[in-house]
Amino acid sequence: MGEIPYKIYLDENEMPTQWYNVRADMKKKPAPILNPQTLKPVTVDELSHVFCTELAKQELDDTTPYFDIPEEIKSFYKMYRPSPLVRAYFLEKKLGTPAHIYYKFEGNNTSGSHKLNSAIAQAYYAKKQGLKGVTTETGAGQWGTALSMACSYFDLDCQVYMVKVSYEQKPFRREVMRTYGAAVTPSPSMNTAIGRKINEEFPGTLGSLGCAISEAVEAAMSQDGYRYVLGSVLSQVLLHQSVIGLETKAALDKYGIKADTIIGCAGGGSNLGGLISPFAGEMLRGEACYDIIAVEPASCPSLTRGVYAYDYCDTGKVCPLAKMYTLGSGFMPSANHAGGLRYHGMSSVVSELYDQKLLRATSVEQTSVFEAAEMFARVEGILPAPESSHAIRVAIDEALKCKETGEAKNIVFGLTGTGYFDMFAYAKYNDGDMRDYIPTDEELQKSISKLPKVEMCV
Amino acid sequence: MGEIPYKIYLDENEMPTQWYNVRADMKKKPAPILNPQTLKPVTVDELSHVFCTELAKQELDDTTPYFDIPEEIKSFYKMYRPSPLVRAYFLEKKLGTPAHIYYKFEGNNTSGSHKLNSAIAQAYYAKKQGLKGVTTETGAGQWGTALSMACSYFDLDCQVYMVKVSYEQKPFRREVMRTYGAAVTPSPSMNTAIGRKINEEFPGTLGSLGCAISEAVEAAMSQDGYRYVLGSVLSQVLLHQSVIGLETKAALDKYGIKADTIIGCAGGGSNLGGLISPFAGEMLRGEACYDIIAVEPASCPSLTRGVYAYDYCDTGKVCPLAKMYTLGSGFMPSANHAGGLRYHGMSSVVSELYDQKLLRATSVEQTSVFEAAEMFARVEGILPAPESSHAIRVAIDEALKCKETGEAKNIVFGLTGTGYFDMFAYAKYNDGDMRDYIPTDEELQKSISKLPKVEMCV
Repeated sequence: MGEIPYKIYLDENEMPTQWYNVRADMKKKPAPILNPQTLKPVTVDELSHVFCTELAKQELDDTTPYFDIPEEIKSFYKMYRPSPLVRAYFLEKKLGTPAHIYYKFEGNNTSGSHKLNSAIAQAYYAKKQGLKGVTTETGAGQWGTALSMACSYFDLDCQVYMVKVSYEQKPFRREVMRTYGAAVTPSPSMNTAIGRKINEEFPGTLGSLGCAISEAVEAAMSQDGYRYVLGSVLSQVLLHQSVIGLETKAALDKYGIKADTIIGCAGGGSNLGGLISPFAGEMLRGEACYDIIAVEPASCPSLTRGVYAYDYCDTGKVCPLAKMYTLGSGFMPSANHAGGLRYHGMSSVVSELYDQKLLRATSVEQTSVFEAAEMFARVEGILPAPESSHAIRVAIDEALKCKETGEAKNIVFGLTGTGYFDMFAYAKYNDGDMRDYIPTDEELQKSISKLPKVEMCV
Repeated sequence: MGEIPYKIYLDENEMPTQWYNVRADMKKKPAPILNPQTLKPVTVDELSHVFCTELAKQELDDTTPYFDIPEEIKSFYKMYRPSPLVRAYFLEKKLGTPAHIYYKFEGNNTSGSHKLNSAIAQAYYAKKQGLKGVTTETGAGQWGTALSMACSYFDLDCQVYMVKVSYEQKPFRREVMRTYGAAVTPSPSMNTAIGRKINEEFPGTLGSLGCAISEAVEAAMSQDGYRYVLGSVLSQVLLHQSVIGLETKAALDKYGIKADTIIGCAGGGSNLGGLISPFAGEMLRGEACYDIIAVEPASCPSLTRGVYAYDYCDTGKVCPLAKMYTLGSGFMPSANHAGGLRYHGMSSVVSELYDQKLLRATSVEQTSVFEAAEMFARVEGILPAPESSHAIRVAIDEALKCKETGEAKNIVFGLTGTGYFDMFAYAKYNDGDMRDYIPTDEELQKSISKLPKVEMCV
C-alpha cells in the first residue's frame, strides 16, 4: 500500500515548540471584541477580571505570530502528543477512490478530544498567576473532562457547571471529571444568583449552555483567586489549538505530501481554527493555496446561514461581544447529537477568514453524518465522535468526487475525537430513530433580528 | 527527563511478522486438554466441530515455536499497532522512585483493550475456512466489541450472547457492537435449548458467563457454517497475544533496556500470557532471568488460592477440560468491578509456567486497585480499565519498594485497556461505596471439592 505508513508519527523532537497566531498574518484583522457594558474594545485590564492575565493578553494580541509553548506544557503534551496523522488506506479502498485521505486523530487521550490542547494551556497560566482554581461550563462534557485533567495535573481547583440534562443523562462523563477531582454541579444550581433566579423562574428546567456559562462566570467573579475559562470560540483557544495544524503540516512535509483539501468540523471553531491556522497562514502570505472546508450541522448553520455581525458570545450576555457569523445568541438549536457543534456563533478569526474567502463552508444533516461515522468505524477501526463525523462525511464526499473525476487529491481532515460517550446517539441511529432537523428561515430570522445594535467603526 | 522518549513506537517495519508459541520452549508441556465426553486428549478433528480447523491446530500445537502472521492480519494490525511502550515519567516523579517504569498500552483502539489482537486472528481463520459467521459470549463486553470489529472487517456474521445483567446495565458496549453490525442477544435467551431451560428453571435470571458460553456453543453447533470463538484462556489466544510481548521486547531492545520486573493482570491469562511469552521463552532457554508477576483480584484468586487440577473451562461443561489452576467451575466470584478478571480458572500455559515457578502471583483488593487507578489517571492522563489497574497497583508497589532500597529497577507492566465503559465502577469508588470481597476458605473449598475426578497420566 505504498511507502507512506498507516500512521505518521512525529518524533518528540519534531513537535512544535511554538503556537502560531494566524491573526498576525491577516492584513484585515478580526474585529475587536467589545466590553458588553461600554460597547468599546475591551482592554487587557478589563478582560483580566474574567480571564487569567496572560490569556487576556493572548486574546487581544493580533500581531505576534509565534508564542513559545512553556516547558511545562510541552512536557504535558508529550503525554498524549504528537498525535498520529493517519493515512486512511482502508477507507480509500472501501470507497475505491484515487484520492489519498489523511486524518489527524486527536482522540487518543482520556478527554477523548482535542480540547486538552487548550485546557492544559489555560490551567498552566492560571497556576502561574497563583490562582486557586478555575470555573467553566460544559455541555456534552468533552471540555469539562479536558479541563479536569489539566487542573488535576497542576493541582488547581476545578468547578464545572454541567448543563443539568447532560449531568443526568451522561453520568459517565461526569464520573470521569470527578475521578480527576473536579467539582461538577448541575446547572442551573442554587450556588449562584443567576442559577437561583432561573430555577425560580423556570421550576424543573434542565438548563442550557448559556445558563451554565453565566453561572460559571458568576462563580469565578465571586470567589477570590478564581477565573473563568472557555474551551472554544476564543482567539486564545485557536492559538493553542494551532498545535494540531502545525503537527499536521510537519507530518505531511516529512513525507513530501502537499494537501489539496483540508476539512474540519466547526462548532465554535476551536478544532477547525487550530487545524487550518498554518495552512491559512501560507495562503495569507501568498505561499500556497488550499481548498479549506468548514463543516457545520444543518441544524446550527452559523457560517452557511448566519449573518456577520457583532453578537453576544453567551445567552447570559456577560461575556464580551464579538463580530462573528452568528444565528443570534438567542438561537436555540433543535435536537442534534453533535453537542459540541451546537453553538450559535463562530470564532471571530474563523469568521473573518471565511469572510475573506480563505475557506468555504458547507452544512450536513445528522443521519448522513452517522452513516459516514458507521462506515468509518467499520473500515478504520475508530468509533468517531459525532462532531468529528461531520468532517468524515465531507471527506468521503470529496473522495467520491475524485472517483468521478479521477483526481488523486490529497484530502486531509481533522478527526477531533472518539464517540465512546456518545453511544445514546449511536443507539438512536442503530435503532433507525434518528431524525434530521433544519431550522426554517423564519426561525433564523427571529433570532437574528434580535442581534444587538452595535455601531462600531473598526 | 533522559534520552528515552515518553512513548517508544516501533516503525511499521519493526512489527512482529510471527507469533511466538511459548509451549515450544517448555520441556514440560501444559497437560493436554480433554474431550469432556471421553476424558481423553481431544483431537484436532474433535475440536474442529467447535473451533475453526486452523485454530484447533494452533490450540493443540505445542512444538512449533513460530507461526507466520498472515498478511491480512498484519495489515489489520497496522490500523492500531504497534502500540506504544510508554515510559511512565510522570508516575515515577509522583512516586519519587528511582525505578524506571514502562507500560505497554493496548487501549488505543475502539475495542479499548488487547482483545482485538486475537479477535482479528480468529475472524480471519473463520473467513478463510469459508464460514458464514461465529458465535461468542461476552460479559463486560471487551471481547464482544473486539470480535464485532474483527467480523465487520471480514464481513462475517457475529452473534454475541451478552450476560443479561451487562446487556441491561452496560448499553454502551452493546451499542458499539451493534454499530459494528453484530447481533447482540441477552443471555439466557429463548434462542437456544439451554437458554430456554435456564429461563424456565430460573425465571427472571440475569444470566451468567457460564450460561452465555453454553448458549454461544450451542448456537455455533446448531447452525451450518458457524463456529464458536473465545477471547481468553485458550492457548491459541495466548499465541496471538504474544504480539504484545514481542513488541514490548523489541521496543526495550531498541533502547537497550533490560527489564527486571514484568507485571500483568491475570483473569483467563490472555494478556499476561501474551505479554510474558517471549520473556518466559528466554527464561526457558536459559538466556535471561526476569521477575514475572501475575496479579489477580483477591475476589477470584485462582493462582494464589486455587488448586492445579483438571477442570471444566465453562460452567455448562460443554468445552474441553483443561489442567489449570482453578477455583472450580462452579465458583461464583463475589461482586468485583474488574469483570474481565472474574474467571474461575487460568490458562493452562500460564498455569504450567506458574507451576514451574517461572512466574509468581499475587492478589490485590479492589479498593486499593481503584486508588492506584485514580493516581495513574491523574498523573499519566489515561483512565485505565479496572482489569489493567490490578497491574498498576503492583507496579506502584514494586516501584515504592525500589524507593526504599534505592534500586533503579526497570519495571514493565501491561496496561491492557481503558476504563471508559467502566464508569459505574469509578462512580462507586468516587462515592466511597466500593467494598472489598474475599472468599472464605470454606467457600473455596466448597467449589474446589466439586472438581471432576480425572485420572489422567500425562
